[in-house]
Amino acid sequence: MLDIAIIGAGPAGLSAALNGVIRNKKVEIFGKKPETSAIFKAENVNNYLGMPNLTGEEMIDQFLNHALDVGVKFNEALVSEIYDMGDYYTLNVDNDFVDAKTILVATGIPKARFVLGEEEYIGRGVSYCATCDGMLYRDRDIIVVAEDKEAYAEEVRYLQDIAKKVYLVAKFDVKEKFNDNVEVIKNRLKIVKGEDYFKKVELVNEIEIEAEGLFILRETMPVAKLIRGIEMDENFIKVNRNLETNLKGIYAAGDCTGKPFQVAKAVGEGLTAGLNIVSYIDKVEKIKVEEKELVSVK
Amino acid sequence: MLDIAIIGAGPAGLSAALNGVIRNKKVEIFGKKPETSAIFKAENVNNYLGMPNLTGEEMIDQFLNHALDVGVKFNEALVSEIYDMGDYYTLNVDNDFVDAKTILVATGIPKARFVLGEEEYIGRGVSYCATCDGMLYRDRDIIVVAEDKEAYAEEVRYLQDIAKKVYLVAKFDVKEKFNDNVEVIKNRLKIVKGEDYFKKVELVNEIEIEAEGLFILRETMPVAKLIRGIEMDENFIKVNRNLETNLKGIYAAGDCTGKPFQVAKAVGEGLTAGLNIVSYIDKVEKIKVEEKELVSVK
Repeated sequence: MLDIAIIGAGPAGLSAALNGVIRNKKVEIFGKKPETSAIFKAENVNNYLGMPNLTGEEMIDQFLNHALDVGVKFNEALVSEIYDMGDYYTLNVDNDFVDAKTILVATGIPKARFVLGEEEYIGRGVSYCATCDGMLYRDRDIIVVAEDKEAYAEEVRYLQDIAKKVYLVAKFDVKEKFNDNVEVIKNRLKIVKGEDYFKKVELVNEIEIEAEGLFILRETMPVAKLIRGIEMDENFIKVNRNLETNLKGIYAAGDCTGKPFQVAKAVGEGLTAGLNIVSYIDKVEKIKVEEKELVSVK
Repeated sequence: MLDIAIIGAGPAGLSAALNGVIRNKKVEIFGKKPETSAIFKAENVNNYLGMPNLTGEEMIDQFLNHALDVGVKFNEALVSEIYDMGDYYTLNVDNDFVDAKTILVATGIPKARFVLGEEEYIGRGVSYCATCDGMLYRDRDIIVVAEDKEAYAEEVRYLQDIAKKVYLVAKFDVKEKFNDNVEVIKNRLKIVKGEDYFKKVELVNEIEIEAEGLFILRETMPVAKLIRGIEMDENFIKVNRNLETNLKGIYAAGDCTGKPFQVAKAVGEGLTAGLNIVSYIDKVEKIKVEEKELVSVK
């Protein structure tokens, strides 16, 4: 069981992880390569106090090295689902499961958004996890929308063995070889349609495809999908001055909490969130110990 | 007229100044030597992401050099009063006056506090500024409480020529030579007493001294005295997520806004406050231009 699962390996996630590890907590980061951080491509960053005139790449390098030196563990992985287990959370990480007492969301500027109709049919034909839901579609027709060039192929190979037919919709050129029951369609998802249950997708140019299930494979998950019930303020996660979200044990830091989209803001929020999470864990543990003592006295 | 007057030269003040200057604003910092920052004496700071294992002194050096290189102007000076002029603020800085459109308070962990009774008699016999109020006490008896070893002597020299008698209360050994009408008392201020108007002070060991005026010379001013009407949350300045205080054009960042007392939090808040102040100034200027255009159309 992790003390803190951090989603996102940018400045906010690394700063939080650094501070969690220093305070002797078991911390792991799950995220895309640090090179994908918004700051990485910057030619010159000169407003992070104390580190003048660095490229984004140099800055991220120094950040990552500092965090790794202290003992932060980074996993290059996509978190696709988070389940509330009452006392703790379970994360679906690349189709594996990881338990954590608390979660810090540090996913950067929100990019992934639902397309029209998508949210309505989640759990009613729309899925994001082949391993979790694939078997529901044995010998049926499914659509796979691949938005993530890196990780889709493995999912499609798993699904082609289960489903009768797989429509693979991708905006990029698909170079992988799949079974004959996989039909590649170079296009983009526009609308998800159905009645009580998912029925079909509309692609760009009004092309429609019918199927019984729809898998959407994204690079990042929309935060509202990743964490059910999390309160948003327009596109950003709503946090208070302690970086707490509305959900117990879930914190957020960095660009995903809103402007300014700047390194110093992300690093500062990461620290504040990290230290507040440490206090939160210690407080919860203390209550548990006291409850146990109370029971043993009885 | 400054765009931004920053009070405090610690990590929060420097970060805000850096970001203000980069955005082409006229910014000056007023504060004590950076060596007096809370972090300066730290033996090892390892939780500011990207700058591992520095002493507090090395860290402050890098911070200050970065800010000065970019063009931040630092004045070693004490701000003793702030006046709301409607459209802008006037600061009393070492008995000189400085105008600024906006103010960032970045004064660190609040140390200076009022003693019992002090607040009640401000403007009714209690003063913090010899140049401002000295002449009110011509040929009268006054008490000067010197808490600041550095700057009191000049003030006392000014006051000894005006007052009939000066009781100089200091907790440290006074080595300066003053006129014969100055009586040095090695002691500490405990209570300020009076009725409608200030009457006397009580020192430690119940010694009382009567006089017509009381000057208290402190290293730092209590924030609530410095900025009348600023909303506090216990000992800290109350700010929202944008680092705005309850007063128009006055922002706060760093340790003075509350825990965690950490460099990364201060630097992050400094940046956020700095950039929000820049937006605020630009918005106000734009409204002014529009109003002028409206008038010229009429």
